[in-house]
Amino acid sequence: MADQRWLLALDFGGSKLSAAVRPAEQLPAMPGPLQVRRMPSGSRPSFDSDWWRMLELVRALLHEAAPSAIGVSFGGPVNAAAGRVVLSQHVAGWEDVPLAQRLQAELHAPALVDNDANVAALGEWHVGAGRGCDSLLYVTASTGVGGGWVLGGRIWHGADSLAGEIGHIIVQPDGPPCSCGKRGCVEALAAGPNLARRAREALAADERAGKILRERAHGELDQITAEQVAEAANLGDELAGQILLGAARALGQGLGIAINLMNPRRVVLGGGVTKAGEPWWQAVRDAARHQTLPQMSVEIVPAALGDDAPLWGALALAESIAPDPL
Amino acid sequence: MADQRWLLALDFGGSKLSAAVRPAEQLPAMPGPLQVRRMPSGSRPSFDSDWWRMLELVRALLHEAAPSAIGVSFGGPVNAAAGRVVLSQHVAGWEDVPLAQRLQAELHAPALVDNDANVAALGEWHVGAGRGCDSLLYVTASTGVGGGWVLGGRIWHGADSLAGEIGHIIVQPDGPPCSCGKRGCVEALAAGPNLARRAREALAADERAGKILRERAHGELDQITAEQVAEAANLGDELAGQILLGAARALGQGLGIAINLMNPRRVVLGGGVTKAGEPWWQAVRDAARHQTLPQMSVEIVPAALGDDAPLWGALALAESIAPDPL
Repeated sequence: MADQRWLLALDFGGSKLSAAVRPAEQLPAMPGPLQVRRMPSGSRPSFDSDWWRMLELVRALLHEAAPSAIGVSFGGPVNAAAGRVVLSQHVAGWEDVPLAQRLQAELHAPALVDNDANVAALGEWHVGAGRGCDSLLYVTASTGVGGGWVLGGRIWHGADSLAGEIGHIIVQPDGPPCSCGKRGCVEALAAGPNLARRAREALAADERAGKILRERAHGELDQITAEQVAEAANLGDELAGQILLGAARALGQGLGIAINLMNPRRVVLGGGVTKAGEPWWQAVRDAARHQTLPQMSVEIVPAALGDDAPLWGALALAESIAPDPL
Repeated sequence: MADQRWLLALDFGGSKLSAAVRPAEQLPAMPGPLQVRRMPSGSRPSFDSDWWRMLELVRALLHEAAPSAIGVSFGGPVNAAAGRVVLSQHVAGWEDVPLAQRLQAELHAPALVDNDANVAALGEWHVGAGRGCDSLLYVTASTGVGGGWVLGGRIWHGADSLAGEIGHIIVQPDGPPCSCGKRGCVEALAAGPNLARRAREALAADERAGKILRERAHGELDQITAEQVAEAANLGDELAGQILLGAARALGQGLGIAINLMNPRRVVLGGGVTKAGEPWWQAVRDAARHQTLPQMSVEIVPAALGDDAPLWGALALAESIAPDPL
């Protein structure tokens, strides 16, 4: 183990921590088994608990060996150039943490830190659904809608490390309010919890609508999830179908705008909402295509790496700064 | 003249042709006087007439000297990687012309060809309002609305050489029809002729509205231009003001979306519509700011090079491929 050059990947999610290692010479490679360790963040997570739990995962993977380079995915805004976390929306104590520097001091290896959407984009580009593309937009649709760009084989960060905010494009100026304070953003319409909320509201507004959806909810209408809406829609429930496809169209409109602006070769969609079935995908693609110039040859495809995309991307980050072997 | 290394810039516009030369060692430089020759395309322009007229301009500038490299701005879609013009919307015979190759054969120097919005973006980045930025969106608002990106000091073309289509972002799903077949695109709302058309329609719909605008039009209501609408608005005409600021907001919304997606450092606005006065600028900036994350530090500024932006950009293109001096 000590003679091996190891790349270390760390993923600080909102609710869970993951770490993976891989021998440096195996990258780039087809996705294969990763040596991964995972741990929940715990019931009252903080920067300190995240930090010590993550180091525990690293020890379990590497024992006493030192990594040759470290790549980090962080679930929140990051100043990638400075290697600093800006904050976490989910875990206290992460404000303005010089994470790259702290990891370097602790583990004696260079580190790069980036936000999870960017790192997942890089992972999909490197070994997933974006392989071989010169330009890629990765979008994750789950509890929120976020995005990351890989342009010319590199993450595009933008001037303030904030590029990729596809979730806060307004596609329905008179649409529902968004957590960002605007109305009708892609996220307000297409994210899972928001989609589910609109289904609950629609059921409450019309007691005769949504028979199949009501059945699947077993009477617990206030607990309805996006997954149940998708299931009911795919079983023919009209109300669920309208809401699901409305959400898909909103996402597709956002994608169409992004495609018109940047003309990427491929758009890779990940996140739980993308499991909603073929009609959802068709509606996303149709809405995107309606917006885009007919000459644009973009493909819109499912992500290939699932929850491991950030770890694969973090390995690619690590690879990019690993020192050459002696 | 023969010992000098000359960079040659050509601008094939829809209605006029321009050429400029500059000694290679003067670039990059502050914008100063360009040696320019211009000529209208003529009443029935074609590829052949454009070609021979442009060569005449080149001879007038260079006499018998050969340029060391050629940069070309073309007013229409271009496959930049292949150096081919796709077509011209304004001039017949430009379909699938290998322009870089033809110029190289004629003038014995390497040539790069790109579309006018991209080349103007590069010009503003190189010597204009975008100097010193790592990332820039250039948008021109005149008879249409087009855009070009400079990211990391290079034009971003996209997979099909079609990036930058900010004019065809839908910002009002129920808005007026656009030439592209959709409704409520930025261009349908913010381009000069469309803005003027809406003013004419509004005057026709309400005979008491738009007193100042009617006066400025001297009774020729069907000839009203965007310039007259802007003048009347700035003199206090309510109807003209509503239409002008509505157009500005639509453009600002499109810019806000582009900023959220790419987080550029600067947005540079050029084209005749940007002469509409301070209220127009304020409405553009307010609408963009309303859409964007507060942490984004973008500036929205006027273009500095006017109609010469494509020539300056073409000089930068030429510079990028000029052979080193012997």
